[in-house]
Amino acid sequence: MTDDKIDLNKLSTLPPDDVKEKEIREKTVELLQQLKDFQAKLYAQAKYAVLVIIQGMDASGKDGAVKNVFSGVNPAGCRVKSFKVPTEEEQKHDFLWRVHRECPEKGMIQIFNRSHYENILVPSVYKLLDKDVIKKRFGAINAFEKLLKDHDTIIFKFYLHVSEKEQLERINERLTDPMKRWKYQEEDIVETRHREEYMRIYEKIFRDCNEVPWTIVPSDKNWYKNYCILHTIVKELSRYDIRYPHEY
Amino acid sequence: MTDDKIDLNKLSTLPPDDVKEKEIREKTVELLQQLKDFQAKLYAQAKYAVLVIIQGMDASGKDGAVKNVFSGVNPAGCRVKSFKVPTEEEQKHDFLWRVHRECPEKGMIQIFNRSHYENILVPSVYKLLDKDVIKKRFGAINAFEKLLKDHDTIIFKFYLHVSEKEQLERINERLTDPMKRWKYQEEDIVETRHREEYMRIYEKIFRDCNEVPWTIVPSDKNWYKNYCILHTIVKELSRYDIRYPHEY
Repeated sequence: MTDDKIDLNKLSTLPPDDVKEKEIREKTVELLQQLKDFQAKLYAQAKYAVLVIIQGMDASGKDGAVKNVFSGVNPAGCRVKSFKVPTEEEQKHDFLWRVHRECPEKGMIQIFNRSHYENILVPSVYKLLDKDVIKKRFGAINAFEKLLKDHDTIIFKFYLHVSEKEQLERINERLTDPMKRWKYQEEDIVETRHREEYMRIYEKIFRDCNEVPWTIVPSDKNWYKNYCILHTIVKELSRYDIRYPHEY
Repeated sequence: MTDDKIDLNKLSTLPPDDVKEKEIREKTVELLQQLKDFQAKLYAQAKYAVLVIIQGMDASGKDGAVKNVFSGVNPAGCRVKSFKVPTEEEQKHDFLWRVHRECPEKGMIQIFNRSHYENILVPSVYKLLDKDVIKKRFGAINAFEKLLKDHDTIIFKFYLHVSEKEQLERINERLTDPMKRWKYQEEDIVETRHREEYMRIYEKIFRDCNEVPWTIVPSDKNWYKNYCILHTIVKELSRYDIRYPHEY
């Protein structure tokens, strides 16, 4: 099984060489309009729910992805949930409790900025839980995502892949740019020291939490990151029968 | 006191004569950008919450207002709640319970498509509750809105004012346009028969629930409706010290 394992260090964080920024930006504008159209129909039809999970290290561009991919979509049909350190109440429940209540009903697009995968990542890196407890979580997540799929939820899972250099530059920017200073937290620096460990856990997750496949997004360039996410979503939604209920 | 009462039948549902559609549309584009900028700062600063209450009869353009005013805003900082007929669970609580849990925390913009005002309107028109119970609700709403204001919530209350002719045309359109058919409900027709009664209750609300003043929006033309809402919000937000926390 270890053979199928993705090696993140071998995957580029940059756009492919033959890609032209100008063309990608033009395509992105088209894709944004297509996503907007899909959302309107999804909401009217209320047949499918859409769940977009965005994972990635600190400063990998998760917030920017939410903003740049989903601004433009009618907020009546699109919700964003950022999962932070669990509250006291949340900690008294199983780790999927707080996640489950934020899952989209039919007709809605729900975006998770971080997700239940943090409950594998953090305890693995900081050795907060026994290995067998973490192993059970893999099983629980697979069963959970299957449950959602069986309820006609179309799920996307994105990992935003940035280089260490780019990551450190962005964290530094948070310290110097007054418009970004509010995002800086001391933990950012601490977390980057664990970069390699995080990557090893992500590689396990990609292999073992594959009930819904992952999309690994080269994310050093925001224009390419946004395009990849949009393109993946629009292409997949095109495969479903999404239309106004009285339209034939 | 009756002297201060607004007479909705005397208020125009159309834009003023001297207003030019082209100019208004251009200004609207600018205002949309300003709202987007405010939202980014609101979120970063987390000092104020914003609550936008949109009321109006069926087919007065509430959904369209949400879509056209708030698409473009980062959905991470903007949530929409449409209040429907209360569920069984909600009915077992006081009428503000379900509303209170949807109120915005600091940093967020929350839009209410319908609101606690339905709990005055519907029981008044259909005579479902004693007059003194309804009277108590006026007091409860005023105290509730004051509570929110005291927690630095900037509240807007919009009434979308449409003519009977425009309203009936739009409901008819829902029956014939396949892209709008999904919005049609039989109650729409029943409700329009109570138009005058609804307007009398609204007039009472404008006078007696004035802890936060109402903006009555001429809504027969969507381009003017959207502009009025945006203009009111942006103008009011400009009065507050909304900025990035580390920006001087």
